[in-house]
Amino acid sequence: MVLSSAASAVIHFMPFGEEPYRGAVTTEVIILNGGSSSGKSGIARCLQAVLADPWLGFGVDSFVDALPARMQASDKGIVFAADGGVSVGADFRALEAAWMDGIAAMARAGARIIIDDVFLGGAASQQRWQKALAGTDVLWVGVRCDSAVAAGREIARGDRVEGMAASQARVVHEGVSYDLEVDTTDAESLVCARAIAAHVS
Amino acid sequence: MVLSSAASAVIHFMPFGEEPYRGAVTTEVIILNGGSSSGKSGIARCLQAVLADPWLGFGVDSFVDALPARMQASDKGIVFAADGGVSVGADFRALEAAWMDGIAAMARAGARIIIDDVFLGGAASQQRWQKALAGTDVLWVGVRCDSAVAAGREIARGDRVEGMAASQARVVHEGVSYDLEVDTTDAESLVCARAIAAHVS
Amino acid sequence: MVLSSAASAVIHFMPFGEEPYRGAVTTEVIILNGGSSSGKSGIARCLQAVLADPWLGFGVDSFVDALPARMQASDKGIVFAADGGVSVGADFRALEAAWMDGIAAMARAGARIIIDDVFLGGAASQQRWQKALAGTDVLWVGVRCDSAVAAGREIARGDRVEGMAASQARVVHEGVSYDLEVDTTDAESLVCARAIAAHVS
Amino acid sequence: MVLSSAASAVIHFMPFGEEPYRGAVTTEVIILNGGSSSGKSGIARCLQAVLADPWLGFGVDSFVDALPARMQASDKGIVFAADGGVSVGADFRALEAAWMDGIAAMARAGARIIIDDVFLGGAASQQRWQKALAGTDVLWVGVRCDSAVAAGREIARGDRVEGMAASQARVVHEGVSYDLEVDTTDAESLVCARAIAAHVS
Repeated sequence: MVLSSAASAVIHFMPFGEEPYRGAVTTEVIILNGGSSSGKSGIARCLQAVLADPWLGFGVDSFVDALPARMQASDKGIVFAADGGVSVGADFRALEAAWMDGIAAMARAGARIIIDDVFLGGAASQQRWQKALAGTDVLWVGVRCDSAVAAGREIARGDRVEGMAASQARVVHEGVSYDLEVDTTDAESLVCARAIAAHVS
Repeated sequence: MVLSSAASAVIHFMPFGEEPYRGAVTTEVIILNGGSSSGKSGIARCLQAVLADPWLGFGVDSFVDALPARMQASDKGIVFAADGGVSVGADFRALEAAWMDGIAAMARAGARIIIDDVFLGGAASQQRWQKALAGTDVLWVGVRCDSAVAAGREIARGDRVEGMAASQARVVHEGVSYDLEVDTTDAESLVCARAIAAHVS
Repeated sequence: MVLSSAASAVIHFMPFGEEPYRGAVTTEVIILNGGSSSGKSGIARCLQAVLADPWLGFGVDSFVDALPARMQASDKGIVFAADGGVSVGADFRALEAAWMDGIAAMARAGARIIIDDVFLGGAASQQRWQKALAGTDVLWVGVRCDSAVAAGREIARGDRVEGMAASQARVVHEGVSYDLEVDTTDAESLVCARAIAAHVS
Repeated sequence: MVLSSAASAVIHFMPFGEEPYRGAVTTEVIILNGGSSSGKSGIARCLQAVLADPWLGFGVDSFVDALPARMQASDKGIVFAADGGVSVGADFRALEAAWMDGIAAMARAGARIIIDDVFLGGAASQQRWQKALAGTDVLWVGVRCDSAVAAGREIARGDRVEGMAASQARVVHEGVSYDLEVDTTDAESLVCARAIAAHVS
């Protein structure tokens, strides 16, 4: 398989097993997983722009926005520590599970969906999505970014707790299997999106 | 039935049929329907604050945010006219149907959910939700606001196309059946939320 | 002087001394002072809509946005405590003084300006503005709101630290002299704005 | 003078005349000029983070936010055309002149200031700032970005009219003189900010 030169710098194609990733089935869900400030949201918006069909975009940020405000400073909910650490509790997990089931139901009802998420639990996070999305065709995409570069972009954004980018850059990928990975360290969101789009069937 | 004096000014209790609204079942979804700038989002946030359980809040605004940007200026998507008129097309309706199915699935998976929507189609909009939410216990709430007052709040917000509030104030309620209605013309969001919460079982 | 009936409920006209507030001079600056969630920003936007000339709107929020992010969690800058308390330090005060001088210079250069501020220091805050604005014609407006109502609106907004509204509702007015006061407890922003506009010369 | 290797790729040092740019004087104002989505705001936030003193950050976006909403769709104000073109009218220019005078006054009052602007008028825009800032020590910085790359970032941001980035990428630099230029095509905001900071005296 030959990727275009523009994409070759950023794509690491990693098929699951021996079957080609692109078959008779139609990609129903694209999951972008990466640390804070790795560029997931920008890639998601570019994907919505370059893909011919209209895809719905959701993400962990929109899920957190849907939570009661009081859960954003609660052990049962989600806590953003001053050092950039993020921890979530039982109520967060319970609501997240229902949210994942709902996103999966949207896909089964015919909407094509792009998710951007931060797999704080690494492989365990991926398993939660796999369970919810059982039977749907998912394209798993890892969004990498050099830790120092992501930390710099965190400062440039100015709306994130400093330290999140660095602390999440590697851990969110631990044990996670992807169909392809992009690296935004030296590649623009739009270039990454086009590379991903080439894998959408 | 006696409502508290604080609530009595704003609540018009309208049970469906003869069954009490509060039975053995547990309210799974609260749907707030009202025109732009009628105060739905504020009431939703107050409901999340006053209800003991954590409820997820979604709405037509978060759905529109999930659409590709290009659909926000497309006949197939959603068009905000300069005079405040809003029209939606085939792609919008198709994705909205899947989104509604997904929200319903979240409720069936155990998440308690508050929706704020603008029933541009009046009774037809309610039927779409009824179809998606079949079998779940829904509390239907109408959020009224005097047209001129809502238009003033639209100016005060400064982030909405002028004219939406006035054009939607009445039409979104046409033919719609509610469990209760609140009117934000003279009542605060928190007062309305407490009145609604009293009907949550 | 007769105020319209709509305005009479909310306006308490309090001239400085015996001179009429409205003379040959032209109002160059309107300062709205009130606690968090009292409705200042909404009134400012409505004033911009109802006044014939184009007025520039600035406020303490836009000033805080102009600060380095690190000053928002620094004793020298501004600290938002978990209980809603707000304290500011030396660097904040120094930059604020320069900012006030700059706003005054905009007015002297011919721009008509609406400021919304929170006089955490009460009379001392007013004196800082009076010093900066010396020689310009200022309309001082107090924006009152019942403490409990403002606290409820704070919940409805969902983007403010809870407790700010209640803790600031009274203290920001201590020792401050106004040309007029409005009370948003029972009056809409647009109604308050029209009442203020009637005092603009 | 030797720039670090990291910076050398992005800095084109262009002193005015033969005098060193860095003298006994202290830099009072940094002006970043570049097209939409060239990265000015991110660089400004990074500058605020890397510079030891607290600098205030303002920009054309904060100025536009200060305008009455009705001026954002008026020939006298500012018009954002569907193709990304931006035109401004007489009222905009008049208020902008006063705003520039005010920013200059803040600098003269002791606040160190970072401005990010889009010189729609090229050299004429620079002259307006030079007039307002007469007597203050200004570091003029050009922020370049390849037109196609900026257009891609515009899509990734998702909150700008498409076409602005491409139409402004070159024209805003026409006839403008800089102390230094950075190019964000291949350099991160934080790297550019450090290069600029090295020129701040």
